[in-house]
Amino acid sequence: MISEFDIIRRYFSRPAPSAVLGVGDDCALVRVPAGMELAVTADMLVAGRHFSPNDGPGTLGHKALAVNLSDLAAMGARPRWALLAIALPEADERWLSGFAGGFYGLAGKSGVDLIGGDTTRGPVITISVTLIGEIPEDRAIRRSGASPGDEIWVSGQIGSAAAALAYRQGTLELEHPEAAAVLPALVVPQPRVELGQALRDVASAAIDISDGLLADLGHILDASGVGARLEFERLPLAEPVARRKVEALVQQCVLAGGDDYELCFTAPADRHDAVLVAGARAGVRVTHIGEITAQPGLDVVGGDGQLMKTAHRGFDHFA
Amino acid sequence: MISEFDIIRRYFSRPAPSAVLGVGDDCALVRVPAGMELAVTADMLVAGRHFSPNDGPGTLGHKALAVNLSDLAAMGARPRWALLAIALPEADERWLSGFAGGFYGLAGKSGVDLIGGDTTRGPVITISVTLIGEIPEDRAIRRSGASPGDEIWVSGQIGSAAAALAYRQGTLELEHPEAAAVLPALVVPQPRVELGQALRDVASAAIDISDGLLADLGHILDASGVGARLEFERLPLAEPVARRKVEALVQQCVLAGGDDYELCFTAPADRHDAVLVAGARAGVRVTHIGEITAQPGLDVVGGDGQLMKTAHRGFDHFA
Repeated sequence: MISEFDIIRRYFSRPAPSAVLGVGDDCALVRVPAGMELAVTADMLVAGRHFSPNDGPGTLGHKALAVNLSDLAAMGARPRWALLAIALPEADERWLSGFAGGFYGLAGKSGVDLIGGDTTRGPVITISVTLIGEIPEDRAIRRSGASPGDEIWVSGQIGSAAAALAYRQGTLELEHPEAAAVLPALVVPQPRVELGQALRDVASAAIDISDGLLADLGHILDASGVGARLEFERLPLAEPVARRKVEALVQQCVLAGGDDYELCFTAPADRHDAVLVAGARAGVRVTHIGEITAQPGLDVVGGDGQLMKTAHRGFDHFA
Repeated sequence: MISEFDIIRRYFSRPAPSAVLGVGDDCALVRVPAGMELAVTADMLVAGRHFSPNDGPGTLGHKALAVNLSDLAAMGARPRWALLAIALPEADERWLSGFAGGFYGLAGKSGVDLIGGDTTRGPVITISVTLIGEIPEDRAIRRSGASPGDEIWVSGQIGSAAAALAYRQGTLELEHPEAAAVLPALVVPQPRVELGQALRDVASAAIDISDGLLADLGHILDASGVGARLEFERLPLAEPVARRKVEALVQQCVLAGGDDYELCFTAPADRHDAVLVAGARAGVRVTHIGEITAQPGLDVVGGDGQLMKTAHRGFDHFA
């Protein structure tokens, strides 16, 4: 039987060259370059709620880090160090090896060193990642910086993850090529880390979309004390959603649900070209989808110029 | 029904004056003073394994932070910022209020601001705390610094938490006053944060006792490439354990089990008085219990001068 210490030694003790001291003592030690501040975030994933028991451990290792990278991206921070606390029903070495592979794979691509954490036993797989990034002082992109007249943008496509979830749950029928096109957004989301950093000094406010576009844009509006007007026809819908145009599906997939891990952000209208340049630098499509308004509220205007009825609320674990 | 956002707003959004930005954005932002490095640690507590369902939420909020404070103490770091990720079967406001009270109570006493985290639903209460402290560069106390001839010390008393656990589990009978004396060590441990900082530049190595004295001292020995000789009669045993002197109980409570959250540390023999001064400054009893040896291995010598047979292994969640 593999011990707790062997698990850490075998699977979670790769070198952490960016740290003064990595895994193996009571704490890790890190040093922050002069002029930098730290952006810190933590997310917890619970089996059966945030992922399916059918998700392979490698995709799970990827996703556990990706959701945190997405939070750093939304602030424009550069990822540096991760801590991983994990509860497991049993010490399954095949699972551990796969999970570590997925986690370290994305960590390596993202410049992240795993520097510490905890391994314990629990009735369901529960994964808590804390991620620390750095950003030059006073240059973080906050939710509170949007001003009337700013343009509203979104990265990538929206609706893929929610469509994939609906497909999995049997409420949306997809042909194989469509399913294959949307599933990666759900199981191995690609956080917009480069785009976030490229948007420093360009975006006035940003958030990552983890609870649905309207809900997350709503957080920017609340924090900034402004309103917004979105044009539905501009939304970069994922192909299976766009093709169907089923109202309920659109509501579910695009506006009020779905963890796309894209960025929704605002920028002054005179920085329109700078936003396009930032997107090009990061290799990510960015789409102008509406405007910030002085008047509170969030209006979505349909193709016919009429206001659409929308469900604003995003996903709520306790709803 | 209270929502996820209401939970955070009502219970986990107290001001964090030490942060640039606290709870409420994608990430928290903090700034590290020049000349300081950061010590970072994470622990996960799972209901039924790390605490009893009968533990009140206030004691649980205290303990979730305390176990992390103990890790910072072992490095000599000053606690600064915490992140709290928590999974709950239901949003019970009485529980949340009690938990937050216990957590913020110890945080306030320890100089810690809660700056972020996550709240979600899960089948059993699962609490993951990440704690960040600061320490002047190159002055952290590591496990790897012990040298032959160093004295071995322990803070406070040992065996209380394990005796309390045995009492709870029905394997140890205690009269009420005895039980009342040892239960706090189990349910509301007092991490040795001041002592850890006072031991900077005094201790050569340190660890907190979370898996049993021998197991944790063993980690110092492994990391330092040395051995140790402990004198059993010197051990500052908790009263109910000392009075009974039952071999099995001593083994279980003192040597190879029990999360006392005391510090076990080493210091050069010529710093003996400096250790006593550090203990006095921190208001914590410190006891000299043995010596570091060049020869590997961990010997415990009984009152009769004979080597005792000991079970070295500490607690292992997967054993």
